[in-house]
Amino acid sequence: MKILPKLQIALDNTSLESALDSIRVVGEEIDVIEAGTILCVAEGMKAVKCLKALYPQKIVLADIKAADAGSLLAKMCYDSGADWMTVICCAPIATMEAALKEAKTRNCDVQIELYGDWTFEQAAEWREAGIEQVVYHRGRDAQAAGQGWGAEDIDKVKKLSDMGFKVTVTGGLVTEDLHLFKDIPVYTFIAGRSIRNAKDPKEAAREFKKVIAEYWG
Amino acid sequence: MKILPKLQIALDNTSLESALDSIRVVGEEIDVIEAGTILCVAEGMKAVKCLKALYPQKIVLADIKAADAGSLLAKMCYDSGADWMTVICCAPIATMEAALKEAKTRNCDVQIELYGDWTFEQAAEWREAGIEQVVYHRGRDAQAAGQGWGAEDIDKVKKLSDMGFKVTVTGGLVTEDLHLFKDIPVYTFIAGRSIRNAKDPKEAAREFKKVIAEYWG
Repeated sequence: MKILPKLQIALDNTSLESALDSIRVVGEEIDVIEAGTILCVAEGMKAVKCLKALYPQKIVLADIKAADAGSLLAKMCYDSGADWMTVICCAPIATMEAALKEAKTRNCDVQIELYGDWTFEQAAEWREAGIEQVVYHRGRDAQAAGQGWGAEDIDKVKKLSDMGFKVTVTGGLVTEDLHLFKDIPVYTFIAGRSIRNAKDPKEAAREFKKVIAEYWG
Repeated sequence: MKILPKLQIALDNTSLESALDSIRVVGEEIDVIEAGTILCVAEGMKAVKCLKALYPQKIVLADIKAADAGSLLAKMCYDSGADWMTVICCAPIATMEAALKEAKTRNCDVQIELYGDWTFEQAAEWREAGIEQVVYHRGRDAQAAGQGWGAEDIDKVKKLSDMGFKVTVTGGLVTEDLHLFKDIPVYTFIAGRSIRNAKDPKEAAREFKKVIAEYWG
């Protein structure tokens, strides 16, 4: 049986109440529930605690993009119920290692969030340090500046996957984008506004899963 | 009259209560009160709101290290009472510009937090984009790995200052480190644990200010 890419929802809401309102209708359809950076900045770890309390059987991700203090921040995230946390790609390798060490003590995981000018040389160092997950990102501000998904994006995702990373893909994804990645064993696709702001968010989530099953099933 | 470097305290506490306990005794001695990344991750914007409520006349910094969604995160920080916020150096320039644009509408400011492999070429781009403040950092995990302040650090701080940046210097600073920077018009020095964990934090803060006045007065 083939392994299907997981579906993750990014709760980039600006308040806990709004995030709960978003997740309420789609939570059961989703594999990974992300307390987005915006939500974490707004509400802190309370957001992560509430999401895990509501969805104990789901993977909860604290997208805090740690840049330093890896061990302490990892402890905070995991103690709050997060299964995964993110570390920003420009963090020192010591930060990644510290977060990963904390993760491994409790069967949790660390994702490196790829922003800006990271290199494959760095990525090789992360693999060597035991990092298994990366998040390939088309940033919001880059999107706003008009950058679409291009062949370069697809090639990079493929190369990261070939290096042995479990790759999460994100950045204004809509179902029509998914086919671009069909030849790559993507680990997780993140949808945010395309599900949260849909007229029928539950149906939008199901449509994502249907299209994923079509291409990877 | 010479302009003295400001003294900033980093509240990297893991709870609001602990941060309030730290700032209570030293707040009046300090120029810039920083809601540290750890505190922001723990408590969200509530920490910033409470600090500004307690110290309306002080500069309050939200050290959220934004990597994306610059406009939205800036709005959240400034609406919560922050005067300054941080953007991580590996963020797209679009994120820095978006945060800065938001800052300028309300007489606030943005600091670029220098972590990992940034370049002076990038720094020149930030200056061109109108960024005035950078934070030169010796990271916690780098410190833990045994990296001290070296000639390379001092040279970089000098070069950033020569480029026209207002430079904040941080990373396990103790008063004995300050003389290393005496020939540079440092904008702000950050002390964290060396004040917070001092036997007499108020006295420790005054000692910092005294040493600053000795070298820059």
